[in-house]
Formats: sequence, structure tokens, C-alpha cells
Amino acid sequence: MRLSRYFMPILKENPKEAEIVSHRLMLRAGMIRQQSQGIYSWLPLGKRVLDKVNKIIREEQNRAGAIELSMPTLQSAELWQESGRYDDYGKEMLRIKDRQERPMLYGPTNEEMITDIFRASVKSYKNLPLNLYHIQLKFRDEIRPRFGTMRSREFLMKDAYSFDLTKEGALHSYNKMFVAYLRTFARLGVRAIPMRADTGPIGGNHSHEFIILADTGESEVFSHRSFTEFEIPSENTDFDDVAGLQAIFDKWTSVYAATSEMHDEAAFTAIPDADRLSARGIEVGHIFYFGTKYSEPMGAKVQGPDGKEHLVHMGSYGIGPTRLVPAIIEASHDENGIIWPASVAPFDAMVITMKAGDEACDRVCDSLYAGLTKAGKDVLYDDTDDRAGTKFATADLIGVPVQMIVGPRSAATGEVEVKDRKTGARETMTVEAALNRLTASA
Amino acid sequence: MRLSRYFMPILKENPKEAEIVSHRLMLRAGMIRQQSQGIYSWLPLGKRVLDKVNKIIREEQNRAGAIELSMPTLQSAELWQESGRYDDYGKEMLRIKDRQERPMLYGPTNEEMITDIFRASVKSYKNLPLNLYHIQLKFRDEIRPRFGTMRSREFLMKDAYSFDLTKEGALHSYNKMFVAYLRTFARLGVRAIPMRADTGPIGGNHSHEFIILADTGESEVFSHRSFTEFEIPSENTDFDDVAGLQAIFDKWTSVYAATSEMHDEAAFTAIPDADRLSARGIEVGHIFYFGTKYSEPMGAKVQGPDGKEHLVHMGSYGIGPTRLVPAIIEASHDENGIIWPASVAPFDAMVITMKAGDEACDRVCDSLYAGLTKAGKDVLYDDTDDRAGTKFATADLIGVPVQMIVGPRSAATGEVEVKDRKTGARETMTVEAALNRLTASA
Repeated sequence: MRLSRYFMPILKENPKEAEIVSHRLMLRAGMIRQQSQGIYSWLPLGKRVLDKVNKIIREEQNRAGAIELSMPTLQSAELWQESGRYDDYGKEMLRIKDRQERPMLYGPTNEEMITDIFRASVKSYKNLPLNLYHIQLKFRDEIRPRFGTMRSREFLMKDAYSFDLTKEGALHSYNKMFVAYLRTFARLGVRAIPMRADTGPIGGNHSHEFIILADTGESEVFSHRSFTEFEIPSENTDFDDVAGLQAIFDKWTSVYAATSEMHDEAAFTAIPDADRLSARGIEVGHIFYFGTKYSEPMGAKVQGPDGKEHLVHMGSYGIGPTRLVPAIIEASHDENGIIWPASVAPFDAMVITMKAGDEACDRVCDSLYAGLTKAGKDVLYDDTDDRAGTKFATADLIGVPVQMIVGPRSAATGEVEVKDRKTGARETMTVEAALNRLTASA
Repeated sequence: MRLSRYFMPILKENPKEAEIVSHRLMLRAGMIRQQSQGIYSWLPLGKRVLDKVNKIIREEQNRAGAIELSMPTLQSAELWQESGRYDDYGKEMLRIKDRQERPMLYGPTNEEMITDIFRASVKSYKNLPLNLYHIQLKFRDEIRPRFGTMRSREFLMKDAYSFDLTKEGALHSYNKMFVAYLRTFARLGVRAIPMRADTGPIGGNHSHEFIILADTGESEVFSHRSFTEFEIPSENTDFDDVAGLQAIFDKWTSVYAATSEMHDEAAFTAIPDADRLSARGIEVGHIFYFGTKYSEPMGAKVQGPDGKEHLVHMGSYGIGPTRLVPAIIEASHDENGIIWPASVAPFDAMVITMKAGDEACDRVCDSLYAGLTKAGKDVLYDDTDDRAGTKFATADLIGVPVQMIVGPRSAATGEVEVKDRKTGARETMTVEAALNRLTASA
């Protein structure tokens, strides 16, 4: 993508409304724009990051055997009256009347609808286990939306729902998602700690939040430090291996970790001082086992091997992609801007000409741009005639991992300066070496 | 994907509510499920097709230089009051009040919001031309939603918006989308005819609808037959070539084609009888040039090369993916089910075992499944122990282009029967030959 043809409205000034660094940087880098209170557009640069986040989430959901569908945003009130949550949900639920005066709502979550889909078509235990997910917009009418897309009203959620014949089966399904989440967050370049959590209005008794540590986090968290050394399950994990998954779950839940709601001060103080971690964190995922909480009132049953009808045991598993993007930034930035983990960077590399129109610069830039593009890399080519200072500031702000800077002098000898955004290290090398460095790292 | 682990709720009976074949087949194949009147879930099989349609739309939008972003579904009423459309839009607009009693709406389209994004950040003609698009849910509260996702209330739309300094520039932007649309529909396996169209409530004077011919279409269309012979612009089309694009536009608009709203009976009867085409069609795309209709009331201006401020000239360009899927089915099915064009098929091939658990069958099926998957093909493996008749009926119903049928007898000699869904032709060949046939056709 040539910057001269791109739409990336950089802000020079710090926006006043942004209280936390990720919100400030997302606005400054032209990633998002607020359209109404707590409702955002994702501008092209932000959309690219969001797409990469969603892609990784999808790959790990699919790997764990979850199947993607897409449920609509608007739901009928009737479904929620069946489960009993229509009245309970309060003002966070955006209630709507259509032109026929039918009561509708903008879905804040989809337990009711997926249970309805399930009961309409699955009749036998032979079709279980089943895990269905979608990545869809939700709306929660927060009284005080804030921190940009960290706590917005319209937001994206990946929500998966598992269905099993028995509680044991449901806990295996739970463990699949537990492992998928560990892998997902690791691939996104962040370390998320699973913590025992309160199950809130959804209810149930087996629940973990996945929390990224960050000073701006809204959750208070208490844990053992050893989490940072635990090994992430490999991509060859056998998700059908009940005992194997249970062992991973046991390992990751073997040491103390809890949010303030579930905090046990006695257990925490039993941890040696040096291993005690008391911090703030951002909740980026939440998994629940809630048994027959929805299958019972909504009549979601299957015939078991015994020929009788059984209520299915369910769980739900959420990740918030539109919250994950700022959470990643909270965990990875410096005073100059964002430092993207390679897996979610909007572009893999930037090519920056110091003199657009200079014959040697254009030639070197064109060959870098063509070579990287051909190798399947996403490249942003700053072909503008902005001042050098502006270009460098923009490149650092948007946080693309590798910058390839081409000036008339180096270009004359066929060379390019390669800067690593994270370390700041700069190295001059031939065009070929620069291409090899990036394409070898794939 | 193993069918035993998939979620594809096939209906054996024809659903009573479905009046047209695409709606019937989408319900029977378990592609969609109605959640409320005119509001659908896309079940896994349908979601796969929708994703493939969206991918092709994106690729062609990007090729034409359009840039993707994502605007939210809910909009503030204020924006629409600025353009004057808030009162005009009538009951199809779903109006909502949030908990603070602020008037909101579920966007039926995004001209206002994109103009707002533009005016906030683009100040100079140097940033033009610009074309921004998203693929996002829309809601139009139709009094009579019908035909499944062909005319639903919550639906997906790709809407692009172009911004230019001059009318001439805007018409070049228009031609870019005109060509992108010709390519998009061709790649989707359908022939869409561009027709002069009424501009409806959006206004303006340069507008074409893209129409797929189908007996169930809601539009009456009149055209010259020669459209079916026009060449689709190549993927190497230079979208910056103003004259080149104009020549394509001129060619495709050189013969008579219009919907009933714009029909000129005299011009139509001037066409020789044999070339006269009077039919019904499904509108799957619509492009508009509308000049300064929104930039004027909303103050979207840029500084021109003359140093003065100029209102930008705009166009908008829509495609309905959730309508395209049934439209493709209307154009491509037989009495047994759907016949997917290869580009949008939910799976590239099915592997069907006639005897699950038979050692030879399992071995041949496994090697086909592994080989095709390794070659990057999407494969549905019917590993169930359903009856042969059920399996064949399902395979024909869901319309995957190639069926590979493995029975104990052929498996014993390492052979497989390959059936072409479209022609019905069957051929027995070795596993290697079957693999080669599919992977060579990529």
C-alpha cells in the first residue's frame, strides 16, 4: 500500500478525551474514530489489526474443534423472556421496538439464541459434543463507556457455546477452550493469566477470566508469579485427549490466581513474598461452564444412549477482539508510539523514501516494495514528500515492526537502512539482505 | 471437516414458508435459520459461502483501489438530521433511543457517517481520489421481508464511497467501481447486467443497477441480448487509465438495458425482435454518482490546487452479499439441490464413504481427505453411517462441485468414483488420479 493513496489520518496533537495510552495512540495513529459515545469506526489501519486478531482467534477456535456460524445482532425479546433474563438484564440491554411494535433487543450476548438453534436441530447425543461460535457485534449500553474501544458500547465479541451430554463432557469442552485461549493470547503476542472468576449474571460454577497485566486495567488481580514461566500448549495438542487437556488445565490452575471478586487473602499471603503478584489487569477473555442454566428453561434436550431425554450441559467462551487491540497496545508501546507484535501488526514492514522522485531512491524503494509484496508481506510504502522528521515520527507512532529507510546516498550504492521498531537498532544492508531478512523470518 | 463433527442440520421436508427455490434450498441445506421475521442466522455451511463471496468482493474492491474500514451499525440521529434524511427516510429506518434517551438509529446505509469521517480528516485535494468501503450489517425495517435472505431486514452490505475534487474525477471513480463490479460478479459465477437505474431516495443522475436474470426477481428488466457476449475486464486492468476504463464503461452501456423505472419502450422496440430480452431480475449491486448531495449540507470540502475550498464530488457503491448468495442459487440449481460455482462453494470437494469402519474404505477416504487438505482444499468428509441414499441426496442438495465416493469394492482396488455435481458425470479412477484432478484445477 502506498501511503500517498492510503487513508491514515494521523493526529499531531494528543487528543484531550483520551485518558489511557492505548486510546491516545489509537486516535493519534488514525486507527479509530468515535462516532457517538462509546461507538467507534475502525479506520483502515485499525481494521487491519482487528482482522489479524480475528484471524488468529478463528484459527485457534477451529483447531479446538469449534465451528463458526454467524448469528444476527438483533434478537426478539421472546427468547430472553424464555430464559428469564429479559427482565434481569437491566439498562445495559438496548431494547428496541420495530415498526410492528414488536419488542426486540440488540444482543449483548447469545446464549438464548444459540440454545434456540441447538434445540431446533440437534436431537441425539450422537451429534455431541458440539461447539458453535461466531465473531459478531454486540451492544451493551454502559452508563459510562470509556477508554476508547476498551470499554465501548458497540463492540465485537467472539462467543463460543459448547453442548455436551454430561457434565464430564462439558468440562472437557471447557478445557478445549481453556487451551485454545492460552494459545490464542500467546499468538497475539501477549501473556494472559487465567484466573478463577465470579460468574456474574450468567451464573454457574466453573469460570475463568483471562487477564493481561496492565496498570490501566479495571480489574484488581492477585496471583503467583510462576505463570510467566508456564509453557504454552503446542499447536499439535490433541484436543480429543481428555487426560492430556486436563493435565494442562491442572498445571495452569495449580497456583494461586484470582480477581478481587474471588480473592482469598489467606491463600494469597501463604505465597512467599517474592512470588506474590498484586497488580491491575485487563480482562480479555472469559470462559464459563453453566450446566443446564439455559437448556432447562429453554428445553434443550437430546436423546442419550439410554434412550431417554437429557438436558444438555453448556458452556460459553468469550473473547473481545475490539478490547484486545487496545489491551495489546497497553502491553506493548513506548514514548514514541505503538510496538506491534509481528502477528497482529497492520503491516509487516514499512518502506520509507527520504526523497520521493529521486531516481535511485525510487528504484530501491520500488524493488523493496515489489520484493516484499511478492513474498506475501503486507507493506506500507511511505512515498510522500513529507519531511524526514514527520516520516520517522509517523513510522514509530504506527508501530510497524520493521522500517526500511531509503535515502539518496544509500540508494546510490543499492543499500537501505533497516530499523527494528522495538529495539531501535539500525543496520545498513543491501536490498537483497533486507529482503532476505524479512522473508526468512516468515 | 468430518461431517460427524460438523453442524449441518439438513431438513428432509420442504419448509412451507419458502416461496422461492433459493430460500427452500438454503433452509433445507441447513445454511440459514430464521430468528425473527426477516432476521437470519447463517449456519456453518451458509457462513462458508458468505465468507467466500465477501472475500471475492474484497479482493476486487482492493484491486480497484478502494480501502477497507469498518463503521458501526448504530448511528446518531444528529448526522442524519444534518443531511436532511432523518425525516425523509420513513419507517424503514429503525429508530432507537439509548438509556440516555438519545435518538439513535440502526444504519440502513452510511453516506452521512462516511462524509463525517471524511470532513474530519481530509483537507486537501492531494489526498484525493479516495474510496472507502466496509462490509457491515445494515437494517431496513421492511414492511414485508420475504424470500429468506433475499429481502431480509438485517442484512450485509458492502458499501463503498468515493470522494473526488471534480465531477470528471468522480466519474473515473465511478468507472473503477463499474469495472470492479463486472469482475466481482463474473468471479462469483454469475452474469450481472448493468442497467440504467432510478436513483431513488439517494438522488443524483449517474446510476446503474447490476441485475442477475432470474424468474423470481423482483425487478422487471429490458435489455439487448448482446450483454451475454461482452468480455469481462481482465485482472490486469489498469484502474488509473482514465480512457481505458471509460472505453469499458462505454462498451457495456452501448446497448439498451434498463429496469422498468427507467424503461424507454420506444428505444426497446427499436431493437430487433430476436435481440430483445424482457425478463425478471435480482438487483445485486447498485452504483451512484450523486455529486455534492451530501458534501454540501455536511460541509465536506477540500482545498483545491487553486487554493480555494471545493465541495467534494461523491459516489456510493453497494453490493449485498447476503442477497447474492440466494441470487447465485436462483441462477444455479437443479431439482436435486444447489450447484455451486467453484469460487463460492462451501467446500471444494466431498469425500463420501459408503461403509464407515470398513478398513479399505477408511484407508482410501483418509488418504483422499489428507491429500486434498494438504493441497489447500476445503473438504467435507461424510464419515457417517447414514444410508447410501441419504448420503447421495445430501451431497446433491448442498451442491459441492465434486463428490468422491468410496465403496468397499472400489476401495479394495484403491479406486474412487468421482462425480461432477453439475453434469452428473461419474468416473472411476485411482486415488492419485482423483487427487490430481482436483489439485490441478486450482
